[in-house]
Amino acid sequence: MNEIKPLRPAADELLSADAFEAAIRAVGTERYHDKHAFHKLLHGGKLSKAQVQAWALNRYCYQEAVPRKDAAFMSRVHDRELRRAWISRIHDHDGLGDEPGGIERWLILTDGLGLDREYVTSMRGALPATRHIVESYVRFVREQPLVVAVASSLTELFAPSIHRERIAGMLENYAFIGDDVMAYFKRRLTQAPRDAEFALAYVKANAKTRAEQDACVAAVRFKCDVLWAQLDVLNHAYVTPGLIPPGAFVPAP
Amino acid sequence: MNEIKPLRPAADELLSADAFEAAIRAVGTERYHDKHAFHKLLHGGKLSKAQVQAWALNRYCYQEAVPRKDAAFMSRVHDRELRRAWISRIHDHDGLGDEPGGIERWLILTDGLGLDREYVTSMRGALPATRHIVESYVRFVREQPLVVAVASSLTELFAPSIHRERIAGMLENYAFIGDDVMAYFKRRLTQAPRDAEFALAYVKANAKTRAEQDACVAAVRFKCDVLWAQLDVLNHAYVTPGLIPPGAFVPAP
Repeated sequence: MNEIKPLRPAADELLSADAFEAAIRAVGTERYHDKHAFHKLLHGGKLSKAQVQAWALNRYCYQEAVPRKDAAFMSRVHDRELRRAWISRIHDHDGLGDEPGGIERWLILTDGLGLDREYVTSMRGALPATRHIVESYVRFVREQPLVVAVASSLTELFAPSIHRERIAGMLENYAFIGDDVMAYFKRRLTQAPRDAEFALAYVKANAKTRAEQDACVAAVRFKCDVLWAQLDVLNHAYVTPGLIPPGAFVPAP
Repeated sequence: MNEIKPLRPAADELLSADAFEAAIRAVGTERYHDKHAFHKLLHGGKLSKAQVQAWALNRYCYQEAVPRKDAAFMSRVHDRELRRAWISRIHDHDGLGDEPGGIERWLILTDGLGLDREYVTSMRGALPATRHIVESYVRFVREQPLVVAVASSLTELFAPSIHRERIAGMLENYAFIGDDVMAYFKRRLTQAPRDAEFALAYVKANAKTRAEQDACVAAVRFKCDVLWAQLDVLNHAYVTPGLIPPGAFVPAP
């Protein structure tokens, strides 16, 4: 009997750098949250101000988790040069010295939406599921092998296009959104590609077996799910069917 | 029967800020590692160059753990202002931009002692116990309540005097120690008091029950033990009885 020649690399064969990168990018094409129905509503001007408020105060929980996620990563890194590179992500979010940072820019957005800052930062009004989801991301980065933890940041490869779309769509479609409150996304247009490039190079250099490559691709999928699930719970609470859990933000009538 | 009036506050009574601080400082008086026999030998010029090498390459493991410990702390902090303050500790150790940081300064010390840098940073020659001890400190900070984790940094209250003593003693007593290699300790003379002052104020403001105060005092004791135990294992391996574990650094004859 003739041996059957496989058309694709065997499941245990190391992918080439290009095939590995393509597998990572394919995850974005399939499941990055720019494809979520809620985002289409958000960017298309189809949401009420109250629904945009709900989005912004829930998304604050994610912003708030990101520097803790990055610190959790650094707490496991023995390579000083890697820590020295990674710390810029914390500076981007928390600020450094006079630079206020991305969380502060997010609060300018929630201010602009008329939300009380103490209410937003207390996270009292966020959906409980939002907080479970974002903390699961922090835990993933704390517990997974370093290369897999780095891979989970690679959704930033897909971020600039959603941010460009968001800036244009929200400015055009909502009278209550001004240029100033979009500062967060404008800054991310330059920060995210720098970080994504670094992380992609790291992952390509450090995933040395097919199993590690597969785990990295799965990490990008996991992270896409983290982002997608946040929109699912928003959509369920504030769009369809509009079932707000007890204690969560209730839009003003 | 008359009630017996206690001479000291009951074990469940909140200590005054002054009494709390005094209890913390008393731990240093009793068990900070400046009282260890090995330090007396080190500062008094009683060690051979090889014994100083053993100290420096083991102590590197501690230096290497400190920024990971600080990142582990930050990964649990929801208060952005606290993270923005704490991150300077990571900058101090890892450097930032052009500033090379304390770990680099420690490697200038080990360079000056004639140790190969790759050998030092690989930590291959360190005593296994050293690494167990320092990782136990990282774990403590990762797992304990925040105020207790902060309290464990308070050994820095006691550091400047040991650093001054060390700079003077080592410069005076060892021909192989020059001014340049003591840069690490000189820098810590200003960094440690700033950090200790911040941490002491934090602990006094945030330990709100006697149980929390007691846990903070115990954390200072734990941290003193972390420092003391490192000298115990050095002394056992390289002074008395001089039993070097398999694989650890062996002084050149």
